[in-house]
Amino acid sequence: MGLIVVKAEALMRAISCSLLILTSCLVALDAQTKYIVFTYAKKASYKDLNSLPVLVYIDAVAAAYNFFQLCKCSIRPCCGGNKSELLPSSHRKFLYLEWVCFLLDQVAVYIVFGATVSATQGSMLAMTGSKVLQWMKLCDRYTRFCMQIGGALLCGYAASISMGVLSSISAYNLFRLYSPTKFLQSKS
Amino acid sequence: MGLIVVKAEALMRAISCSLLILTSCLVALDAQTKYIVFTYAKKASYKDLNSLPVLVYIDAVAAAYNFFQLCKCSIRPCCGGNKSELLPSSHRKFLYLEWVCFLLDQVAVYIVFGATVSATQGSMLAMTGSKVLQWMKLCDRYTRFCMQIGGALLCGYAASISMGVLSSISAYNLFRLYSPTKFLQSKS
Repeated sequence: MGLIVVKAEALMRAISCSLLILTSCLVALDAQTKYIVFTYAKKASYKDLNSLPVLVYIDAVAAAYNFFQLCKCSIRPCCGGNKSELLPSSHRKFLYLEWVCFLLDQVAVYIVFGATVSATQGSMLAMTGSKVLQWMKLCDRYTRFCMQIGGALLCGYAASISMGVLSSISAYNLFRLYSPTKFLQSKS
Repeated sequence: MGLIVVKAEALMRAISCSLLILTSCLVALDAQTKYIVFTYAKKASYKDLNSLPVLVYIDAVAAAYNFFQLCKCSIRPCCGGNKSELLPSSHRKFLYLEWVCFLLDQVAVYIVFGATVSATQGSMLAMTGSKVLQWMKLCDRYTRFCMQIGGALLCGYAASISMGVLSSISAYNLFRLYSPTKFLQSKS
């Protein structure tokens, strides 16, 4: 029965990994050159806005993390496996592993979500500009560039949602090991 | 024993509520007027940047949500209480309530965290400007205004962390009710 959870977790990790790689690539490979005068070319790239390179690096690291967890789960179904056959000593070890899994997943989802929101806010300012702050808008000039960033951000949000589901799965894997009546006491 | 969890939850909700109100007030009451020429005054307020009013509204709503949950918990310790004395039918009702608690807490923490990150990104751009995008920086003119926003954002992150801990507590309250071996089967 624990196999359903293991399969769901592996599927969500594979989806998250793909979406994170897609986001990184879409942002990092985005560039558009515009000729303002015939001889003077100006190039827009993801490095123009601080938050976009940060998104590329964070999503790459998060993809690697999810891939590592996926490999670990496929070699030895440690996460969400059936604990009823375990000896008390290995049960305790698995409990620590579940705590590490849970905390890492929590940190990962908040960092990925934060990086995506930050990139969205930067891009929104680049799209709308700010009259009060005398910031000019840029997306009327680099339309294709901005469209691709928009697509990347949508992928980023999809990845955040799937990682959010993953963090709930790891919370389920961890907390179901505890007694419903006694405070933080596991059932071994 | 379940009382420890109820107390911890009530404490975290009170802390979150206070920090969220503090953040809202610090941002909303922040304003600075500078005289550029003797007769011409220019005022910086939180409405200059789109993401700051959004932060004020979201933090106010989240504070109200946490206050509501705090009242509910103090009237009747539904969250994290001792379920061992419950009848099977009311156990089922409590399970639904725990699911609602868990999902609302998850949504709340992501929205508050997202609004805080978004405001940080906007404020960072206002502080550093962008040479490539020809955006000028503003914080050398409105120093006190920017310092207060910085303090508010720190409070916002503290609130996000305490709401993150709250979402883990509600995950613990929910998932410890499930069997460690059988998939999504509760122990009644």
